[in-house]
Amino acid sequence: MKGQEKQKLWGGRFTSATSSLVEDFTQSLDFDRFLALHDLEGSRAHARMLAHAGIISEDELQQILSGLDRIENELEQDEFTWDPGLEDVHMNIEKRLTDLIGAPGQKLHTGRSRNDQVALDFRLYTAAALQEWQQVLKELIQALTRQAQAHRDTLIPGYTHLQPAQPVCLAQHLLAYARMFMRDHERIEDALPRVKVSPLGAAALAGTTYPLQPEQVAEHVGFEYVFKNSMDAVSDRDFVLEGLFIASMIMMHLSRLGEEIILWSNPGFGFIILPDAYSTGSSIMPQKKNPDVAELVRGKTGGVYGRLMALLTTMKALPLTYNRDMQEDKEPFIEAHRSVSSSLRVMAGMIAQTEFDRERMFGALKDGYLNATELADYLVARGMPFRQAHHITGRLVAFAEEKGLGLEDIDLDTFRSFSEIVDSDVYHVLDYQQAVKRRVTPGGTGPDSVDEQIRDIKGWMDRKNGGSV
Amino acid sequence: MKGQEKQKLWGGRFTSATSSLVEDFTQSLDFDRFLALHDLEGSRAHARMLAHAGIISEDELQQILSGLDRIENELEQDEFTWDPGLEDVHMNIEKRLTDLIGAPGQKLHTGRSRNDQVALDFRLYTAAALQEWQQVLKELIQALTRQAQAHRDTLIPGYTHLQPAQPVCLAQHLLAYARMFMRDHERIEDALPRVKVSPLGAAALAGTTYPLQPEQVAEHVGFEYVFKNSMDAVSDRDFVLEGLFIASMIMMHLSRLGEEIILWSNPGFGFIILPDAYSTGSSIMPQKKNPDVAELVRGKTGGVYGRLMALLTTMKALPLTYNRDMQEDKEPFIEAHRSVSSSLRVMAGMIAQTEFDRERMFGALKDGYLNATELADYLVARGMPFRQAHHITGRLVAFAEEKGLGLEDIDLDTFRSFSEIVDSDVYHVLDYQQAVKRRVTPGGTGPDSVDEQIRDIKGWMDRKNGGSV
Amino acid sequence: MKGQEKQKLWGGRFTSATSSLVEDFTQSLDFDRFLALHDLEGSRAHARMLAHAGIISEDELQQILSGLDRIENELEQDEFTWDPGLEDVHMNIEKRLTDLIGAPGQKLHTGRSRNDQVALDFRLYTAAALQEWQQVLKELIQALTRQAQAHRDTLIPGYTHLQPAQPVCLAQHLLAYARMFMRDHERIEDALPRVKVSPLGAAALAGTTYPLQPEQVAEHVGFEYVFKNSMDAVSDRDFVLEGLFIASMIMMHLSRLGEEIILWSNPGFGFIILPDAYSTGSSIMPQKKNPDVAELVRGKTGGVYGRLMALLTTMKALPLTYNRDMQEDKEPFIEAHRSVSSSLRVMAGMIAQTEFDRERMFGALKDGYLNATELADYLVARGMPFRQAHHITGRLVAFAEEKGLGLEDIDLDTFRSFSEIVDSDVYHVLDYQQAVKRRVTPGGTGPDSVDEQIRDIKGWMDRKNGGSV
Amino acid sequence: MKGQEKQKLWGGRFTSATSSLVEDFTQSLDFDRFLALHDLEGSRAHARMLAHAGIISEDELQQILSGLDRIENELEQDEFTWDPGLEDVHMNIEKRLTDLIGAPGQKLHTGRSRNDQVALDFRLYTAAALQEWQQVLKELIQALTRQAQAHRDTLIPGYTHLQPAQPVCLAQHLLAYARMFMRDHERIEDALPRVKVSPLGAAALAGTTYPLQPEQVAEHVGFEYVFKNSMDAVSDRDFVLEGLFIASMIMMHLSRLGEEIILWSNPGFGFIILPDAYSTGSSIMPQKKNPDVAELVRGKTGGVYGRLMALLTTMKALPLTYNRDMQEDKEPFIEAHRSVSSSLRVMAGMIAQTEFDRERMFGALKDGYLNATELADYLVARGMPFRQAHHITGRLVAFAEEKGLGLEDIDLDTFRSFSEIVDSDVYHVLDYQQAVKRRVTPGGTGPDSVDEQIRDIKGWMDRKNGGSV
Repeated sequence: MKGQEKQKLWGGRFTSATSSLVEDFTQSLDFDRFLALHDLEGSRAHARMLAHAGIISEDELQQILSGLDRIENELEQDEFTWDPGLEDVHMNIEKRLTDLIGAPGQKLHTGRSRNDQVALDFRLYTAAALQEWQQVLKELIQALTRQAQAHRDTLIPGYTHLQPAQPVCLAQHLLAYARMFMRDHERIEDALPRVKVSPLGAAALAGTTYPLQPEQVAEHVGFEYVFKNSMDAVSDRDFVLEGLFIASMIMMHLSRLGEEIILWSNPGFGFIILPDAYSTGSSIMPQKKNPDVAELVRGKTGGVYGRLMALLTTMKALPLTYNRDMQEDKEPFIEAHRSVSSSLRVMAGMIAQTEFDRERMFGALKDGYLNATELADYLVARGMPFRQAHHITGRLVAFAEEKGLGLEDIDLDTFRSFSEIVDSDVYHVLDYQQAVKRRVTPGGTGPDSVDEQIRDIKGWMDRKNGGSV
Repeated sequence: MKGQEKQKLWGGRFTSATSSLVEDFTQSLDFDRFLALHDLEGSRAHARMLAHAGIISEDELQQILSGLDRIENELEQDEFTWDPGLEDVHMNIEKRLTDLIGAPGQKLHTGRSRNDQVALDFRLYTAAALQEWQQVLKELIQALTRQAQAHRDTLIPGYTHLQPAQPVCLAQHLLAYARMFMRDHERIEDALPRVKVSPLGAAALAGTTYPLQPEQVAEHVGFEYVFKNSMDAVSDRDFVLEGLFIASMIMMHLSRLGEEIILWSNPGFGFIILPDAYSTGSSIMPQKKNPDVAELVRGKTGGVYGRLMALLTTMKALPLTYNRDMQEDKEPFIEAHRSVSSSLRVMAGMIAQTEFDRERMFGALKDGYLNATELADYLVARGMPFRQAHHITGRLVAFAEEKGLGLEDIDLDTFRSFSEIVDSDVYHVLDYQQAVKRRVTPGGTGPDSVDEQIRDIKGWMDRKNGGSV
Repeated sequence: MKGQEKQKLWGGRFTSATSSLVEDFTQSLDFDRFLALHDLEGSRAHARMLAHAGIISEDELQQILSGLDRIENELEQDEFTWDPGLEDVHMNIEKRLTDLIGAPGQKLHTGRSRNDQVALDFRLYTAAALQEWQQVLKELIQALTRQAQAHRDTLIPGYTHLQPAQPVCLAQHLLAYARMFMRDHERIEDALPRVKVSPLGAAALAGTTYPLQPEQVAEHVGFEYVFKNSMDAVSDRDFVLEGLFIASMIMMHLSRLGEEIILWSNPGFGFIILPDAYSTGSSIMPQKKNPDVAELVRGKTGGVYGRLMALLTTMKALPLTYNRDMQEDKEPFIEAHRSVSSSLRVMAGMIAQTEFDRERMFGALKDGYLNATELADYLVARGMPFRQAHHITGRLVAFAEEKGLGLEDIDLDTFRSFSEIVDSDVYHVLDYQQAVKRRVTPGGTGPDSVDEQIRDIKGWMDRKNGGSV
Repeated sequence: MKGQEKQKLWGGRFTSATSSLVEDFTQSLDFDRFLALHDLEGSRAHARMLAHAGIISEDELQQILSGLDRIENELEQDEFTWDPGLEDVHMNIEKRLTDLIGAPGQKLHTGRSRNDQVALDFRLYTAAALQEWQQVLKELIQALTRQAQAHRDTLIPGYTHLQPAQPVCLAQHLLAYARMFMRDHERIEDALPRVKVSPLGAAALAGTTYPLQPEQVAEHVGFEYVFKNSMDAVSDRDFVLEGLFIASMIMMHLSRLGEEIILWSNPGFGFIILPDAYSTGSSIMPQKKNPDVAELVRGKTGGVYGRLMALLTTMKALPLTYNRDMQEDKEPFIEAHRSVSSSLRVMAGMIAQTEFDRERMFGALKDGYLNATELADYLVARGMPFRQAHHITGRLVAFAEEKGLGLEDIDLDTFRSFSEIVDSDVYHVLDYQQAVKRRVTPGGTGPDSVDEQIRDIKGWMDRKNGGSV
């Protein structure tokens, strides 16, 4: 019955105590404790603004700041005592501050309510998380680009419907993923101005009677924007939802890459050798090497999607302004952050260290008759109608399949027995590398395009690293 | 680098150690530690079966059982040391058992793999959770039924589109919720036979070469059913998904009840006085009493929906049999269990202690002209065509609205100035209680129907309490 | 402005007409027209009950029935004229009936409101859909079982983590899917009693003043159960949600099977030859054969999940009783029904006609060294400690890999150079078929277990076909 | 068996015909026919580029363009004959074009595959939809702002937890919604550059051997950007997912506004009188006026969320490049577009015409004692310690509640019997309008802030209307 002795701030008119069942149910410490450092940061900014506006004295400000420093120290040393009876991170810190410095601690809450306070704290947390993702996205893009550079001339079947379709260079395949993660990075860039909006000054919902200076607070915490409408400020959770959507997109992209790693590790493909540090084995079968990391990344995608759906559902049809439902906003984002940042990190590490088996990939080209289109085009170029060329190519593929050959292994006489217009230059055309080289369109798999793509990504990376991000 | 010194079971052919990043990423202790007691239960059952089948000796069995008991004791005393480097709950317990009793500890794993072991543990956990929900559902149904009994004659507006539509008794409204929760209870009853299926004996995926007796294990853990196909046994997570769906339905029902409590607490309605123990106040406004518990229940609905979606997504398109993605099955269910069981519990407590304000509810009947339909019916019964009756009633409502009266407050002369066929018996017809009493259909809001509904629920409850559930 | 001339039933007190924009927005014909035949069925039952209860005359009943028959005929001949200005299927049919037979048409609505009427119609639709799924599930189970029977002795690698793990027979793999679909069938069986509950008699929300006989209606439409609480009856959509959940589970299972078909069609696996009728080709590459049907089944899974989520979200936090939000219940289920029934149907057809390439599957066993575990077990059986046996097996696998051999291709002398305890009986042990045969546990991949599984499924099928389903 | 006579483009090597079941299952006309005009637009751009690059002649270009014009005309006149046997919109149009103009029709497909063609069409559709939303968002923002301007001095209770908290002006409440919709507009602005990327030139997946000029195509269709990687170009559906997320956010905001309209229409609130054109009545109860439009908007939110979830799930773990699963991308977005655009439109219309009942809103201020905080602040300002002020205010509220008065109705003598420091200036303080005026912080509910907010929105609107959007 720990809660019964606590004096709740609002306990005056209540005759019976909150039951401990209810206290457990309503406390939010499990998740909002992760906002503690941001709560301190927000409080520092608020205190400085109060002093600047003459609402508290310089001396009071100094006491508050040193109290907050001490709490930060306790948090970092893991010496801070959390009390679930005090409901949330804000009350825990407020209580501790008042214990430490007395009256000025209470003045800190002038013109501020928990409604705008928690909004600020959570915006600080979200902004930090998104910026961390940007950092790890760049590491992953770099790992992909480096491998692409090393495999500019390595061939691999390009698939549609998971059926071999046309030969491409491995670089092209890897750079497709780099592009996805660049879009994720850009989405964060677009979202940040909507995250970094200071809601302090909105108070409970209506603004306050104190002459607060909201832009001051924004500046202290490094936010460029200030809320425009107090009721919106305390009931807006768009910024979290944008974060969860971006998280879902990153995981979707990672799940596709994970799927390919799992496929490529299967002996039927055998395209890659996973680094030992990123695989696990079997206690029973010594030959096994499981792509667990890729599977877990793929598996965690569901969890992140679910959290986006969770908060969208929670926010549905809530009237203005603050409703207690909104307390359920933290778990989804904090857990999604954990999944996204760790998944990006392990994927970057794994990609960097993965070895590709050129021979197996080349073998798959042959088995898939990935130069059949080239042969048909060759016949058309020599004047045969497309439909006939398509038909003869089909018969040649069937013949080669039966003999266990690639098209390029058929001798010229045999070719001519199918069509007399075939000449010895056909072997140049059938060369897989040549087929790739002929894809000359910008953005295609040809070597010039790949070089240009790599240059473009490097330029982007330089701008991002030099820029404000 | 804690993981680097650990000897992984499967580490033999691997040349570099798992990175600690990867170790953190792949370990599952955060959630599967909640299965620890079920893991012990499953191991006891497996050991007994092994002894019964003559695969281990009676002496070995006894050593294993006493080792497991000791571990259970350590767990309960919070003295068990968890090592994330040992990946999961199974390896932690296995290692501890071997440390405690040596060789027989290793024999425990004869004919068992982690694939069927974790499936059994999780089925035990899920079954226990579902049965706990059944218990709390009954408490909530009882709380609703008791209030219904107390409010058999209390009137309240029945709403459609949140507009007052027809008068009903409060009992009828509360019993509608009882019915929802009874369906939830039944859904659990239906699901349990699919949860309580023992997968032990499926081993990694193919069954084993040992002469195991799967029904023995099932019997020991209190399951009636045994897996029929080993590959299905290790890759089936239907039972968790059914649990999550049932959880979603319970939360959906609770969110509707929560919404009504929130509405009824609003001063515009004022139908209920929430127990102090289930409300919170405001540090600023002394008059406030917030329905936080109902809001949180409503808010947690999103989280539970999201977890159903999470696991459905994770399981999508996974080939047979076990894939590491499936490790992500525990967090969703364990967290949903927490939300569902606590939400049911607080709701049962809150309903039991809620007071209803009969006067405010009666006032809302009057303000909503909820006897207008009765008046029109009265006119029709006296021979007026329906369309005309509808029209005259409309005009009378407009008149009463203007005068600030209820229809029942209009004097007979005035009635007659609208239609001469009105007589003094109209006041009996306009009586709200009479309107409710006239709803005589089975299942309707009339008193006999309500009595019958309460009898029916009590009978159901008796059967459930007397039965095996 | 088509709506402006229409006389709305409730239009009396409204001064301006519904805007056509609003009329389009609120009409529900796009989807509820699919309920038309069920609406007729419900109306027939209601009319019969009214006559039985003496509320309408036998003559009126006959007029109503013949009017409804005529409308059914118009619907079947596609001659029925739908008018979106009449909002929904009920008003369209009611209007037509009154046009056809006059006054008795209006009496049909005695004691019935659209709230209980639409609930009945939709329950009839849902029950029919679920029963159709049961039928097609049985066809799919049969196709799987027949293939299993034909492939009782065909070997295939059993996978975990998509890595070859242990040899199993193809039958075992296919029967795992049969088990999933049997559970889906059972879930429908469990849900039907909650679907087949007649809500007629609940009227708008409170029951009616007419002496209706709800059980009569239930009997006429073939439902065993009758609503117990009128407010629950008009606001309950649990039955649709159960349908959508079952749909999601079926699609999840189908997506797993679809994934395997896609993998097995890839030339790296090459385990199956898809029937031409269930594949598509490429206009460019003549060698291609795409598993489009399997991909679409997998792709439609998302749509069905989304619809479950849609209705769960829509129902969240709705106060009693009917709210217009609930009109959005039909599209999700009707579209899910379309996806589920067509996906099951094409999958059953595709499975029935798929050919398996035993040679390629056997080759995959060899490439995966799927008898390595057997070798280690052999060494252990001959007295070697497990750890050493595991180690030597690992070295032999490495040796065989280097030579491009299977373990069974190594000659005895070479075996003995690794360990002298190996004898010529090792070749029996290394035989893949023998490895499968040794899995003797019930439910395992051994032939007796497979035969027993097939018998069990056939018995189940007989019971289902003979029973009421 | 309609499909059996059709000659499939890829049918050459297939021996049996596609079954009609499969044909129905795989065709996509139900939804991709909505892309028809965009398909024509893309084809015109491709043809112009081909001519510019010298791949087709000017004469061929003119024939193609006139053929496409004729098809557009047929589509607009509803004279185009769709053939489901031709699978999709592209093949239907291609076939018609070839029928109309012969050989040049086939040349149109040079260097283009359905993979990049459908990506372009769908990007054109999505961009158009998003821009339409922007337009209607502005209409809604304008409706809200106009009502805000008219209700700058109208008071309404500000709620937290749906409990009256502090008085605000109605303008502040409405402008909070304007802010939400402005963020939605901005999200579209951010997303458009990722939507308006031309994928043409990527061909099947690898680029082509023709010297195409992708920027030319982009320019012709009004896109600023061109794909950078051909494999990404054909497998990217991020742009649809962003559209679906933005749709979900808009619906979430609309559902909140819808909820308030539903609450405010309830007689317990009575804050608004809905326009007749946006309400429906009851055939039974003449007094009823249901907020159906707001309910449907709220209800459609689930459907849009579900569609976001659907496509996220479908895209999960798809390997590169095109997979047939991706055909399931159109239905979700096209249906979401329908819900979003119509919901925005009806909401804008409804808000514009809604009347507010100032008297009822003022009454709710009184009933909620929304000047209690002001009184406590007054006492503190006169030197009373906060805790005592809070206590005395609480007692005064209780007294007023008992007497059925507002605090402002208590006479001075009575006030002084509670505390002698109260003076006649207390009535100024208790005035609700004054309480609102005292909220002076930027973004607060005070009149200057509201004026500034309206100015800010008007400036934004001017910029948006003048700009490129």
